[in-house]
Amino acid sequence: MTRILGIDPGSRYTGYGVIDTERGRSRLVTCGRIVAGTGAMPDRLVTIDRELAGIVRDYVPEETAFEEVFVDRNVRSALVLGQARGVALCVAARIGLPIAEYAPAQVKMALTGSGRADKEQVQHMVKLLLKLQGRLVADAADALAVALTHAQVRGMRQRTGLALTGSWKKSG
Amino acid sequence: MTRILGIDPGSRYTGYGVIDTERGRSRLVTCGRIVAGTGAMPDRLVTIDRELAGIVRDYVPEETAFEEVFVDRNVRSALVLGQARGVALCVAARIGLPIAEYAPAQVKMALTGSGRADKEQVQHMVKLLLKLQGRLVADAADALAVALTHAQVRGMRQRTGLALTGSWKKSG
Repeated sequence: MTRILGIDPGSRYTGYGVIDTERGRSRLVTCGRIVAGTGAMPDRLVTIDRELAGIVRDYVPEETAFEEVFVDRNVRSALVLGQARGVALCVAARIGLPIAEYAPAQVKMALTGSGRADKEQVQHMVKLLLKLQGRLVADAADALAVALTHAQVRGMRQRTGLALTGSWKKSG
Repeated sequence: MTRILGIDPGSRYTGYGVIDTERGRSRLVTCGRIVAGTGAMPDRLVTIDRELAGIVRDYVPEETAFEEVFVDRNVRSALVLGQARGVALCVAARIGLPIAEYAPAQVKMALTGSGRADKEQVQHMVKLLLKLQGRLVADAADALAVALTHAQVRGMRQRTGLALTGSWKKSG
């Protein structure tokens, strides 16, 4: 069994989702979102740093998965998002946790079979695969989606004997 | 006397410069650059995190000054730079160090009297103000320039009784 932490970093909300996965089956351990607020950026970064480090300490994931950032044309928002993402990546890398990154289209493809699925379809599949009822906070659903994508990719690679390379980056 | 740490974050090189300032006079304590290398981004971020935390621990600055990022049209590089910057900001904010930010034009204006001075002029003034001889690594010179800008601004505000607001952001 492998415990995976999926992270969807943002400067206001950082979604996280922890799953246990074994032989193609996954179950939810915990999920939620870190509210970094709307204050000064350094304070928000410290909140992300502290809360994410707490989640790692409490749930002891073995691997982490990040959604690659969708980079639109807004340079200013890319910079702001980058700051949150940098802090989140550093929390995982600092203690040597392996980090995998997946493009949004990869996540959609892995969960729904289509790289152009909408958010509702992805969220629907997250709930189906983890047997969840009721509403899921969007940020938590995104984090679980990337964790499930990683579970699927690593499972396939183990079965086919392929090395965990490419989007897979072992840190430390 | 106040000890100021100036930081110029980058995904490859992060310049730093520590000065002691008192009544309009500053002297160099240390400066240099952190080489984060060209490896996987999470590993680079960990290097910035660890080395900058070490500098803060060893030199115990009371305040920090960051150059605001010059955001050009390249969204990808803004994202990459943002990641390094987020980690560096977090090192300072995590332990409650005050953080001031200055635009590149503010730094040029403070040091040379012109918002459009070139790098050589700024570096020349850094060396003059700190009575340094010989060549300075560019990243270290940039970090010292923003530290000297902050020394000048805080000195002026103290003399005029103006509160340290605006670009000044107390964290924690």
